[in-house]
Amino acid sequence: MSIVRYGIIGVGNMGSGHAKILTDGSIKGAVLTAVCDGFEKQREWAKANFKDVAVFETSAAMIDSGLVDAVVVATPHYDHPKEAIQGFAKGVHVLIEKPAGVYAKQVREMNEAAAASDKKFGIVYNQRMNPLYQKLRELIASGELGEIRRTNWIITNWYRSQAYYDSGTWRATWGGEGGGVLINQCPHQLDLWQWTIGMMPTRMRAFCQFGKHRSIEVENDVTAYAEYENGATGVFITATSEAPGTNRLEVSGDRGKIVIEDGRMTFWRLRESETAFNARNKEAFASPEVWKIDIPSHGRSPEHAGILQNFTDAILKGTPLVAPGEEGINGLTISNAMHLSTWLDGWVDLPLDEDLHEAELNKRIAESTFQKPAVAENAKPADLTGTF
Amino acid sequence: MSIVRYGIIGVGNMGSGHAKILTDGSIKGAVLTAVCDGFEKQREWAKANFKDVAVFETSAAMIDSGLVDAVVVATPHYDHPKEAIQGFAKGVHVLIEKPAGVYAKQVREMNEAAAASDKKFGIVYNQRMNPLYQKLRELIASGELGEIRRTNWIITNWYRSQAYYDSGTWRATWGGEGGGVLINQCPHQLDLWQWTIGMMPTRMRAFCQFGKHRSIEVENDVTAYAEYENGATGVFITATSEAPGTNRLEVSGDRGKIVIEDGRMTFWRLRESETAFNARNKEAFASPEVWKIDIPSHGRSPEHAGILQNFTDAILKGTPLVAPGEEGINGLTISNAMHLSTWLDGWVDLPLDEDLHEAELNKRIAESTFQKPAVAENAKPADLTGTF
Repeated sequence: MSIVRYGIIGVGNMGSGHAKILTDGSIKGAVLTAVCDGFEKQREWAKANFKDVAVFETSAAMIDSGLVDAVVVATPHYDHPKEAIQGFAKGVHVLIEKPAGVYAKQVREMNEAAAASDKKFGIVYNQRMNPLYQKLRELIASGELGEIRRTNWIITNWYRSQAYYDSGTWRATWGGEGGGVLINQCPHQLDLWQWTIGMMPTRMRAFCQFGKHRSIEVENDVTAYAEYENGATGVFITATSEAPGTNRLEVSGDRGKIVIEDGRMTFWRLRESETAFNARNKEAFASPEVWKIDIPSHGRSPEHAGILQNFTDAILKGTPLVAPGEEGINGLTISNAMHLSTWLDGWVDLPLDEDLHEAELNKRIAESTFQKPAVAENAKPADLTGTF
Repeated sequence: MSIVRYGIIGVGNMGSGHAKILTDGSIKGAVLTAVCDGFEKQREWAKANFKDVAVFETSAAMIDSGLVDAVVVATPHYDHPKEAIQGFAKGVHVLIEKPAGVYAKQVREMNEAAAASDKKFGIVYNQRMNPLYQKLRELIASGELGEIRRTNWIITNWYRSQAYYDSGTWRATWGGEGGGVLINQCPHQLDLWQWTIGMMPTRMRAFCQFGKHRSIEVENDVTAYAEYENGATGVFITATSEAPGTNRLEVSGDRGKIVIEDGRMTFWRLRESETAFNARNKEAFASPEVWKIDIPSHGRSPEHAGILQNFTDAILKGTPLVAPGEEGINGLTISNAMHLSTWLDGWVDLPLDEDLHEAELNKRIAESTFQKPAVAENAKPADLTGTF
């Protein structure tokens, strides 16, 4: 194979963005050959905007046409696993949008289908292409920061007005999205939180607030506390009703502290590890020598185009995936644990009790205000530039 | 009265600092006339360093001498309430060091004694003299920031090595100090956390870790979550084993966000309140207009000298106290709630169940490694410059 023929499942908000990237020639070795969408207006939009791209109503018909080698799944969250499982069954490579799904149990089934397949499986964790987070991961993996002691991520700059929530009946409902800020806005950060430090929590205690300053049924304000096997702790704070909000990630280790804020990384590096200093120090008020270092920037993140190029290269050349699809379950598990801890008002141990989480989620879905619509809601995808 | 004659109870670490300020002529209307200390070496140190200052072994003898109008209580934490109650009983003004005491119940008894007295009662919350926190309090009280929605205080720059903890057998023990970083290092921040925003939490969930990276029995690593009556939330994070640590206070309100870090205050101010914007906005991805404002600095904090001058002026001229002693119970209650939440592994409602807290604390004291020493530990006060 010298070129990967892509088909996109769902050309709404995110899928239309992928379609534009795949048709503007920026991805080497890739071509968009087909799209599918259950909504007539989306299909009309695709026909009007792309030439030499076949348009289907269903993903099954699109894959069965033989026109595609790989699919990009950009449906509503709940359907990601179902579409991926079908893709593997029909023998195509699968790249799914985030989140991997809505509850870990369904995502585990998707991962099992991927493992049984010989096709590539990726997830659009485009923030993993950001040089800042790649550098953080490298500094931790290489031991520069020493053993991790604490993480603090304040990611409250997801301002969403009531008008946003009112822009789709499925938005911010248990039935339509399966959650709020954790499922829709934060999947990247929840992934990066564990990917950069290379550790999953062992237990969590979270405090979700539902419909905070907004008329919605899901969480839009969360404070979560995590503990790790090595004794480290972490805090993750997010909200959609604050302006201007903050995006500040702080990671402390035995060799100092790294802060990413305002697109910059600062490393306060200890000349010797805190453990070594503490072991030899005899003065009551002494502290380790610290060097404040501005870690150089390595350019802009290629974002979605970077993920599409990497996935294409993986298919054509065997290049390792930056975001293997199987890893989508990690961030989702953290998100599920935050919900479950709030619902049960107590600790949640990880690995997660996925059946219990699913059962508790289903209670909320049963009471959800969302009703699956019989017809399309709106034709033109909203402009999401800069929001994902 | 034209001059206040001060006597200091305990001339160890903190008391010796007050003695120096009172004898260097920087406090108008104040003079140091006496000190007392149970340790012979401290008394010898006082005699060698101050002239025209009477030296006593007990506070009762010092007050009964008639040489003092006001006492500064700088004993170990547990004794603050006992000494204050004696002072009021003997008719002198009382200025206590922080913390007000170790458990809220004993502090409540002290406050009752103060209320029954006609003498002034102050607490050395010298950080209330810091123009940054005074400005924050003013911006909130005046409505500039709008209704408070969230607070985040990361105050992890209390680096304390094992050598520090080993410098006194009483240090970091339940029997000697009654706690760790919450009782010894954080009283100022715990006070400012509620003083600046003008709200106490209604319930708390805290996660204290005991002897984290240090051989001590008390907490030196804390993550605490707070909820307030108006729906706001807060997080307070502190530790003593991280280097270089962070001191960053963020407060979000309906009119924007204020951050105090590195001795600077930045105010991201919304042109209209978030509530008003949200009510009128019709665009899905719009957000309120924000102005980033560098709030001007108002000089250095007068710290302890400022508190001593204010207390002196209160006695001589009726000047309002910046830090009334009765308010010491607020920060201590928050600290007690953090301990209790950890011990019970659950929510703690405020107002605090002070009897329950005392009972739980007494369990730890009964098992404490600390034994009251028969003799003095060390003669020369450690140099605490910049540490309080």
